Amino acid sequence: MKFQTPRGTRDFLPQEMIKRQYVMDKIRRVFEKWGFDPLDTPAFEDWALLAAKSGGGEEIKKEIYYFKDKSDRELGLRFDLTVPLARVFASNSGLSKPFRRYQIGPVWRYDRPGSGRWREFYQADIDIIGCKNALADAEVIATVCNCMKDLGFDDFNVRINNRKLIEAMLSKIGIKEGKILDVFRSVDKIEKIGSTGVKDELIGKGFSSSQVDDILELIKTDLDEIMPKEKESDDGLSELKDIIDFVAEFGYKENIKPDLSLMRGLDYYTGPVFEMAIGDSRSSVVGGGRYENLIEVFGGKPTPATGWSIGVDRIIEIMEERKLFPEITTKTKIFIAPLKPEFRNQAIRMAKNLRDQSVSCEIDIMGRSIQKQLSYANSKGIPFVVIIGDNEIKEKKFRIKDMKTGKEFPVSMDNMHDILDIVK
Amino acid sequence: MKFQTPRGTRDFLPQEMIKRQYVMDKIRRVFEKWGFDPLDTPAFEDWALLAAKSGGGEEIKKEIYYFKDKSDRELGLRFDLTVPLARVFASNSGLSKPFRRYQIGPVWRYDRPGSGRWREFYQADIDIIGCKNALADAEVIATVCNCMKDLGFDDFNVRINNRKLIEAMLSKIGIKEGKILDVFRSVDKIEKIGSTGVKDELIGKGFSSSQVDDILELIKTDLDEIMPKEKESDDGLSELKDIIDFVAEFGYKENIKPDLSLMRGLDYYTGPVFEMAIGDSRSSVVGGGRYENLIEVFGGKPTPATGWSIGVDRIIEIMEERKLFPEITTKTKIFIAPLKPEFRNQAIRMAKNLRDQSVSCEIDIMGRSIQKQLSYANSKGIPFVVIIGDNEIKEKKFRIKDMKTGKEFPVSMDNMHDILDIVK
Repeated sequence: MKFQTPRGTRDFLPQEMIKRQYVMDKIRRVFEKWGFDPLDTPAFEDWALLAAKSGGGEEIKKEIYYFKDKSDRELGLRFDLTVPLARVFASNSGLSKPFRRYQIGPVWRYDRPGSGRWREFYQADIDIIGCKNALADAEVIATVCNCMKDLGFDDFNVRINNRKLIEAMLSKIGIKEGKILDVFRSVDKIEKIGSTGVKDELIGKGFSSSQVDDILELIKTDLDEIMPKEKESDDGLSELKDIIDFVAEFGYKENIKPDLSLMRGLDYYTGPVFEMAIGDSRSSVVGGGRYENLIEVFGGKPTPATGWSIGVDRIIEIMEERKLFPEITTKTKIFIAPLKPEFRNQAIRMAKNLRDQSVSCEIDIMGRSIQKQLSYANSKGIPFVVIIGDNEIKEKKFRIKDMKTGKEFPVSMDNMHDILDIVK
Repeated sequence: MKFQTPRGTRDFLPQEMIKRQYVMDKIRRVFEKWGFDPLDTPAFEDWALLAAKSGGGEEIKKEIYYFKDKSDRELGLRFDLTVPLARVFASNSGLSKPFRRYQIGPVWRYDRPGSGRWREFYQADIDIIGCKNALADAEVIATVCNCMKDLGFDDFNVRINNRKLIEAMLSKIGIKEGKILDVFRSVDKIEKIGSTGVKDELIGKGFSSSQVDDILELIKTDLDEIMPKEKESDDGLSELKDIIDFVAEFGYKENIKPDLSLMRGLDYYTGPVFEMAIGDSRSSVVGGGRYENLIEVFGGKPTPATGWSIGVDRIIEIMEERKLFPEITTKTKIFIAPLKPEFRNQAIRMAKNLRDQSVSCEIDIMGRSIQKQLSYANSKGIPFVVIIGDNEIKEKKFRIKDMKTGKEFPVSMDNMHDILDIVK
């Protein structure tokens, strides 16, 4: 009987997994450099938590993997890392503020699988909880900019908007408060369905044709032109300016620009929202914003929070297209090939020495011919081979062969540094 | 509304998560040194795969989290990392042999939660697929021994048995082939329920009182005494000897000993089985063995395989008891404390310099008083603080304070090496 992975999920074979670890290790390292500490939460949560209106909203609720445990508890696989974070903060009153945490892990959504869309996918989130200042938003933004740089990207760009600002502008053109989320949700789809699509949808939701024209005009406003020269607290505009200024101070001035058409689909954002895209693409690889009510909804004190979420799988796809990965297919550096099975103990001892020096190596355990051993090392992409034969053992001198260039270097077993210099 | 984690699951707050990462990073590093490459598989699998008789057996089947997706596909959360591995190997015919993979990740069992028993827990597995030689068993055993050493343990011990040997011995005392798994499953519980418990259970299963006495006598056999001096292939005894000899060659002679009472509960083992315990405890923290049929059952060609699984949570518990963890509560090394909000940009620039040198740091984003900043840094356990005040900025000289000793060191911003030397 043959089995496959369930629809929308994947295995990651070593070659692929090494790339994923490369990305996640780099992201984790940057997160930690910026003062974020790790958090982990269960794969599943109470259904009531995931289904709470203020979490993902109705759209996401449909996509949750729901199940009951054997005591009939209603559970669901987590669909993001923000809702678990809000729960953690709400139920641990001892956490000092600001609480700066990162979490990297899989989330699950019963979405229609398609190009780049999976039912099990990885997010890497950073959030700062407990700080209402623009500097907090700027720091999470700059941290991810640093991630992108370290992964080898230069042409990433962050678009930023502020829901407070756009709410004020919509209210000025006569849109009632209760209809504002409708506008957000429709305009959020503008990349996918175009202006005409947004227009049709808004008219379907009961907006008048002239209101829709006003809305579509409004989101084209060039914010640079209306940016205040001095600080003032009208409509979130100065907050937006502060965030952009701080991000510039962190060294990413060229990478951030305001954009009034950016909405974000989720209900829980209350102020700044931001998205990152790469190159000319408008499709976001990182997205988030400020959410001031979520922790209170889950039983905590009213607490400001801001953060965003890297779509790890999408980043990996783009890095693959751009060939940004180091060309390795195995973590193993050296294959130790005994010419005869009797030399196995010598091979074991050499492996022991190398591993003690933190060099990854593998010995032949199959007792195969030297040709087969070399072809195995080659097929796996192990970069170096050491052959152990009669002469080598007699003279205690070995040659290490670079499998790519075919070059051989003499090494002695008494001096590990020879080998370390060659393979590092 | 307050929410908790579902029964049997946990959050890992940063302080705890840092310890978990410490353990899993070390294990991963050792696995890679020994030539194992990473693999990852989905959190859930087809129910039919998980429920296959040869996978976990009836006991585990009862503990699987079962659910249907919205297209009525029957799925279940994985209960171990061996069944997914067998599926991966069976369905990827291009993988070269030996296939040496590691996988570290959560698994889920609907077990009764209790001291040290969780419904979501972590396993770290290594397996070698495609090699029938004793050297493969010895390598997976020695690799985990190396993990334990690197984690700071000296008193770990591996007990090893061979089902082929015990089957032959049971057959000699008249136990029929069809009843042998019954013996394995009952004797496997000897630590938990004692000899009397095993006896009662076996009699309940229809064994005669004298058969049971024979069995209990047999498993006390001192294997060292009957170990063959020369290689011979009777009843798996020489295979056992080979494994033990190779493990000794890898440097862990003191850590391994044969034990005829070791059975392992799982159905799929076909030869050597092994378990590791720490100190005087007999309760295992690592367990596994050789399984020759599993890949065939899942649609692959007949393929030998061997490997075992570290119970990561149990290891962490013991390390906690023995205080084997470095005392850190945050990955952040330096807190940068501006005396006045106006100095924030200086703080940002200093943070940028430090992060460029890979030093983890955090700046004050709350605009708090210096007392509050210091007390925050202290509560988080950040080991160093740099204060930015008028004098410091004027003279471009700063002091870095060791929060534990109270000692202060002068540093200049032009020479990052000063700081690197102090905080490293």
